[in-house]
Amino acid sequence: MFDESGKFRDEFAALAPTGHRRMGMNPHANGGELLVPLAMPHFHDYAVRVSAPGSVEAESTRVLGVFLRDVMKLNLANQNFRLFGPDETASNRLDAVYEASGKEWMARLEDVDINLSINGRVMEVLSEHLCEGWLEGYLLTGRHGLFSCYEAFVHIIDSMFNQHAKWLKTCKTIPWRKPIASLNYLLTSHVWRQDHNGFSHQDPGFIDHVASKKSDVVRIYLPPDANCLLSVADHCLRSRNYVNLIIAGKQPEWQWLDIDSAVRHCTVGAGIWQWASNDAYDPDVVMACAGDVPTLETLAAVTLLREYIPDIRIRVVNVVDLMALQPQTEHPHGLEDQDFDALFTRDKPVIFAFHGYPRVIHWLTYRRHNHDNFHVRGYREEGTTTTPFDMVVLNNLDRYQLALDAISRIPRLRQEKQTATDRYWSTMERHKLYVSEHGEDMPEVQNWRWTS
Amino acid sequence: MFDESGKFRDEFAALAPTGHRRMGMNPHANGGELLVPLAMPHFHDYAVRVSAPGSVEAESTRVLGVFLRDVMKLNLANQNFRLFGPDETASNRLDAVYEASGKEWMARLEDVDINLSINGRVMEVLSEHLCEGWLEGYLLTGRHGLFSCYEAFVHIIDSMFNQHAKWLKTCKTIPWRKPIASLNYLLTSHVWRQDHNGFSHQDPGFIDHVASKKSDVVRIYLPPDANCLLSVADHCLRSRNYVNLIIAGKQPEWQWLDIDSAVRHCTVGAGIWQWASNDAYDPDVVMACAGDVPTLETLAAVTLLREYIPDIRIRVVNVVDLMALQPQTEHPHGLEDQDFDALFTRDKPVIFAFHGYPRVIHWLTYRRHNHDNFHVRGYREEGTTTTPFDMVVLNNLDRYQLALDAISRIPRLRQEKQTATDRYWSTMERHKLYVSEHGEDMPEVQNWRWTS
Repeated sequence: MFDESGKFRDEFAALAPTGHRRMGMNPHANGGELLVPLAMPHFHDYAVRVSAPGSVEAESTRVLGVFLRDVMKLNLANQNFRLFGPDETASNRLDAVYEASGKEWMARLEDVDINLSINGRVMEVLSEHLCEGWLEGYLLTGRHGLFSCYEAFVHIIDSMFNQHAKWLKTCKTIPWRKPIASLNYLLTSHVWRQDHNGFSHQDPGFIDHVASKKSDVVRIYLPPDANCLLSVADHCLRSRNYVNLIIAGKQPEWQWLDIDSAVRHCTVGAGIWQWASNDAYDPDVVMACAGDVPTLETLAAVTLLREYIPDIRIRVVNVVDLMALQPQTEHPHGLEDQDFDALFTRDKPVIFAFHGYPRVIHWLTYRRHNHDNFHVRGYREEGTTTTPFDMVVLNNLDRYQLALDAISRIPRLRQEKQTATDRYWSTMERHKLYVSEHGEDMPEVQNWRWTS
Repeated sequence: MFDESGKFRDEFAALAPTGHRRMGMNPHANGGELLVPLAMPHFHDYAVRVSAPGSVEAESTRVLGVFLRDVMKLNLANQNFRLFGPDETASNRLDAVYEASGKEWMARLEDVDINLSINGRVMEVLSEHLCEGWLEGYLLTGRHGLFSCYEAFVHIIDSMFNQHAKWLKTCKTIPWRKPIASLNYLLTSHVWRQDHNGFSHQDPGFIDHVASKKSDVVRIYLPPDANCLLSVADHCLRSRNYVNLIIAGKQPEWQWLDIDSAVRHCTVGAGIWQWASNDAYDPDVVMACAGDVPTLETLAAVTLLREYIPDIRIRVVNVVDLMALQPQTEHPHGLEDQDFDALFTRDKPVIFAFHGYPRVIHWLTYRRHNHDNFHVRGYREEGTTTTPFDMVVLNNLDRYQLALDAISRIPRLRQEKQTATDRYWSTMERHKLYVSEHGEDMPEVQNWRWTS
């Protein structure tokens, strides 16, 4: 292929493609150039009607499924939206999407098959690796998608997430790279509901893993109810060049915010729930929460505290956008110090009920004024196949523990601590006996309702 | 198979194995019962001779390789020790083991093959999944092993590690389960040396992942030199029912401790390096470090500080056993508060140079008295293919930054801060220009030597 002088012969050099046939000119290699924004239905139309906080139950991911069905429908013609999941679309209660499109299936269709289609836009296979790889390629070539996964098993693709996040970070410094759709994760079937699974299915650590990446790339959302989930999901599907991590339950849960309140709450990222607070700008304690189950336990703790200590002044703060907790110097979503202090005070005890490992809240907030008063409850690697309430008990995230934490930390209630501790242990004894005898939670837990 | 009354016929029931032929009676299912302790060479015999701190260089993993070779040799007859790695045993400089045993190879041997053997005890394949799975099975059935892996890519088996750690935790509560050998990881080719790789090869986050598991299961070691690595590795290979994570470099690096000092240091887990300190119980600043490269930068910062501020009083603290930083209530290796205070003081600034993400040090220490004075430098997701020193500069972990951090935080040096800041920036300018022009580090960095 070389002439006498060692030069590559022109006839071979001429074989290389030129102009738009060069590999680097393939428009799919710069997917952002091909990106067609999703046609989006108006997410308000899918809202759960919440006339008052805690007046109605809903399954958050099922509500989201109907919204996703219509995202699917509206973009069928453009063929640029797909849902990915390791055989869990129905288990994660997103199966309304099948009304718009089936599961992609490349073999023969049999009469017994359900929801399969040779033109399906739902990609299902019990391999988190394949789902992640497919979705990354789909995004990089200018399309849109969402990966729904059991929370504990998303660690399978930790390393793949890493490389995608590093790619996004690097591309931001390359001017000719056009923005691509965000990598959206919906983690559900999460650590706190283990009625049928168990210890092997419990790991909220993907939060920690995602949060290690550059702040201009990652976003983490813990919507406390269905309307917040709708607002967050709409935002994530419209965003570009991020990794969005959304964690939301699939079980029937009490709903807290009507859709307008949900949008306001999610826009700010963290806020005082006035309807649950009675602190008049001077709380005894801040009861903070992030995640659907911790929110339930916190609100239940509030009702217990009002019963135990009628004159207690409680502020309830809910955090949807976890990065709001970080200083603004560390993350663009971070609250300014004065706004953080306005929520969490500079000197009052904060009892923080968190979905994941407690350390996350500590390292997000250690530079804040009131950090020494933060007392965080979360997952501490305790669990088994058990009732919903026993799961939180095993990890000291339950309403009785949170109420005891509050009383123990409020200086003016020092006299109440012993009574509160005794009451806590006798309740725990009742709980343990009831669960082991009946296999379900105590009536006062099962029938608990929010009362303002 | 059933008779008229619906009873399972005896002739079929009789097919099930009885006694020791039952699946549950397979002794490999309770590997601890089969465990034969490793015959161990005396690790002192492999020590690097260190007549004075910083007087000799060595490649830590190469030193370890010779020790592992003899572990291999001494246990060849028992066939109960294997080394696992994703095609990196030589790259990780452990290739002395090939003098004892080759790489397991099941196909025909060709003349060009090197270090292959049909009876090889080194398991190599470029699949972290296979290495991890093989090793887990090997341990669960009563044998011993070590997995050496590039630091960034061990995230590939995050999820498999999770399940093994959960298994270990659960087995501790089952009395008939006998202890098995620990799952030992050696992470090398780490984030701080990227002369030939780059951003994709940088991730020290396995530390965070491992640390989320129960404290009675996980151990994390950052030996600063070869003799400490020997001491730690010997300890880990003898241990039972743990996951041991060891992180150590493979490049030529200055050696600090003779073998007796190394053993003492690793036994405690964290300590004052008196030979590098001149604080006389009253330091201006504590210069702390964990990891080989951070230790180098810290000691270099100490020499700079002595030059800038001749009367400065510095204490150097090195941490090998990361869990020593946690409160004793959280981890059995945790230092008691009074011992922690004796190292880090209750009121002096601590400049902590850390191998991994800075947040790790913050959440390990946030309950300690002096936490508000902890100023941590570590990996912040900045990096590329560059010189060793430029990697630390990009992440603000370099000696000049550490020295500036110290001066900025020592109250009595307030007057020096502006001079120190100007000096820092002019040094950074020189560094940037030198690296871009020469492709290597400045002579004063390359030729730096410890001077007491």
